[in-house]
Amino acid sequence: MSNNQRDNTMMARALALAAQGRFTTTPNPNVGCVIAHGDDIVGEGFHLAPGGPHAEVHALKAAGKRAQGATAYVTLEPCSHYGRTPPCCDALIAANVSRVVCAMQDPNPQVAGRGIARLQEAGIEVVVGVMAEQAKALNPGFIKRMLTQMPYVQLKLAGSLDGRTALANGQSKWITGESARADVQAFRAQASAILSTSATVLADNPSLNVRQSQLPRATLDAYPQSTVRQPTRVVLDRDNKTSPDATVYQLDGDVIRIVDSPSNHAWPDNVQEWVMPDASLTAILRALAGHDIDKVWVEAGARLAGQLLTESLVDELIVYQAPVLLGGDSRPLVALDGMQRMDDAPRFHFNHMTRLGDDVRLTAMLSEHGVITQEYE
Amino acid sequence: MSNNQRDNTMMARALALAAQGRFTTTPNPNVGCVIAHGDDIVGEGFHLAPGGPHAEVHALKAAGKRAQGATAYVTLEPCSHYGRTPPCCDALIAANVSRVVCAMQDPNPQVAGRGIARLQEAGIEVVVGVMAEQAKALNPGFIKRMLTQMPYVQLKLAGSLDGRTALANGQSKWITGESARADVQAFRAQASAILSTSATVLADNPSLNVRQSQLPRATLDAYPQSTVRQPTRVVLDRDNKTSPDATVYQLDGDVIRIVDSPSNHAWPDNVQEWVMPDASLTAILRALAGHDIDKVWVEAGARLAGQLLTESLVDELIVYQAPVLLGGDSRPLVALDGMQRMDDAPRFHFNHMTRLGDDVRLTAMLSEHGVITQEYE
Repeated sequence: MSNNQRDNTMMARALALAAQGRFTTTPNPNVGCVIAHGDDIVGEGFHLAPGGPHAEVHALKAAGKRAQGATAYVTLEPCSHYGRTPPCCDALIAANVSRVVCAMQDPNPQVAGRGIARLQEAGIEVVVGVMAEQAKALNPGFIKRMLTQMPYVQLKLAGSLDGRTALANGQSKWITGESARADVQAFRAQASAILSTSATVLADNPSLNVRQSQLPRATLDAYPQSTVRQPTRVVLDRDNKTSPDATVYQLDGDVIRIVDSPSNHAWPDNVQEWVMPDASLTAILRALAGHDIDKVWVEAGARLAGQLLTESLVDELIVYQAPVLLGGDSRPLVALDGMQRMDDAPRFHFNHMTRLGDDVRLTAMLSEHGVITQEYE
Repeated sequence: MSNNQRDNTMMARALALAAQGRFTTTPNPNVGCVIAHGDDIVGEGFHLAPGGPHAEVHALKAAGKRAQGATAYVTLEPCSHYGRTPPCCDALIAANVSRVVCAMQDPNPQVAGRGIARLQEAGIEVVVGVMAEQAKALNPGFIKRMLTQMPYVQLKLAGSLDGRTALANGQSKWITGESARADVQAFRAQASAILSTSATVLADNPSLNVRQSQLPRATLDAYPQSTVRQPTRVVLDRDNKTSPDATVYQLDGDVIRIVDSPSNHAWPDNVQEWVMPDASLTAILRALAGHDIDKVWVEAGARLAGQLLTESLVDELIVYQAPVLLGGDSRPLVALDGMQRMDDAPRFHFNHMTRLGDDVRLTAMLSEHGVITQEYE
């Protein structure tokens, strides 16, 4: 095997390891690490959850003295700062590895090349950029938050093949099937937060939580009950229309209500109230990012979808379509009323399509060179 | 190779040969034939156009004396009747083949097992049903017409990811791109007829013809200009709203106008007028089948689409989607006004999805065990 081939093979393994943390590392990024002498892997690991050891530390521990003179493959630049754990750079230097291959630089301004520099100063050969696109795809939320202080927004849409969510009379049961609903659970489980509205809470009384029993089988294997994390549920309830007995507030996990003015209700302890009078969606998303929420999964109605799209706040569309037609008088997927020019229509780039039982899921991204999410189900 | 494996391999070759006639055999079916001794192919052929030799005749001619004692693989039961050419059964018997493998029985009531019986009576071993599903997929129109005296109807829909064809103000240019339009050309080229309406003719003045220069590259290679066939263009013009200067009437190829009463215009020679007062869509389609039209490609507006769907006359949806959202007040893909129950919604089964430039094409079929069309672009 050539060195290039070997670097790719080892990094692919490190990426697969990193992905094992995809349900649990938020607000930290997914990171995987492989330590090898030539083709022989002597240690590997991944970051599982905040406060726990970083990928490099797991891998170095597994390698022990065999780390000496080895190459360390890391999906993200090793950290150089004291966060909740000491810098991984120092651990790699102390272990006497001779070469470090990183998929990408850490976009965290506290690192941003300093880790690489520190390793080089210690006489370690450093290679950056091996499988960089795949590494970026692992952490769209973390990267966007670090670079822009905004979260990565995934808008879920589900309807008929002609873009309808319900008949004119409101009937909507079973447009998409069980596999699509399980798939939604997998996306929820990988989000930092799930964003919805008072209108959706009042109309559907949804749970908006992760139900381990309803995850797809492939996900279940990778995500044991013991580690299930509930994404923060965020309800836009500007006019205080919802009440504490709604299911979304009664279930385990943090909830944030965004309101224009304080509510008079007594809310469960897990429910925070953020008073943000007349705040724009941009301001609300920025506030969420400021609280370390970096991947927002939106499940709401046509109206919020339309507002997010109009303000160019959607990074990725996840569209479930059932092979059924509901016709022109039924309810629309998104509200974008009054558009006058085709050039104003929100345009995306398809990046993935798959069958889900009787239905299909199409994903499309704002960026032409977008990351491919949900490589791992 | 086992006999079963060999039979499948040879039949796959015969199916690929058959598909070479997909632009030109109508109203005849696509048929391919391979003649082999064990793994050695000694002759092959396919049916190219009505009046020309059948697949078996081409293959037998190529094999010559080597047909003796060989196995003939045919994608459709060899014919037993005198049509425009003599029965292929007799040719196979005369050539002294020892075994005939057919993918499927001929649904043509003039054959329907008689070909197989004749071969067996002549002492030839006959196997039926090898790759039957793939063989059915080659000839959905022919099979449906033979079995039901109705054509196979493909409804083309093209719009945004939220099922819209134009803004409320009518703007609609470039929703889907060049690849999708080339793909439409390939579907047109494989249809017996293209069905549209006076409303579409008046609104868009479409050509509704096959333009060889606009076919996808893969199709171009298989379909030289010299053999380009224009599908019959059928215009529902019940109230005589169109006039002879419309492009659809001025181009090469047969046109049928379906009207409630005779028109006063003088029409070009290629335009027939079928006076069918208040005829149902079922009656119109049956009349087309009665004139040997068996694969109808529908390119019209939301209204005809809705009527065909409501009357369960659509066998296959071909849906082009652009990664753009036009919103709830823009124009719908299909009109199905007044539907009261989800159970009444036309439901299909997805069978294929593909990327086409920036767009996607989804196909869905009425039958759960539907044939897969357009395997060959």
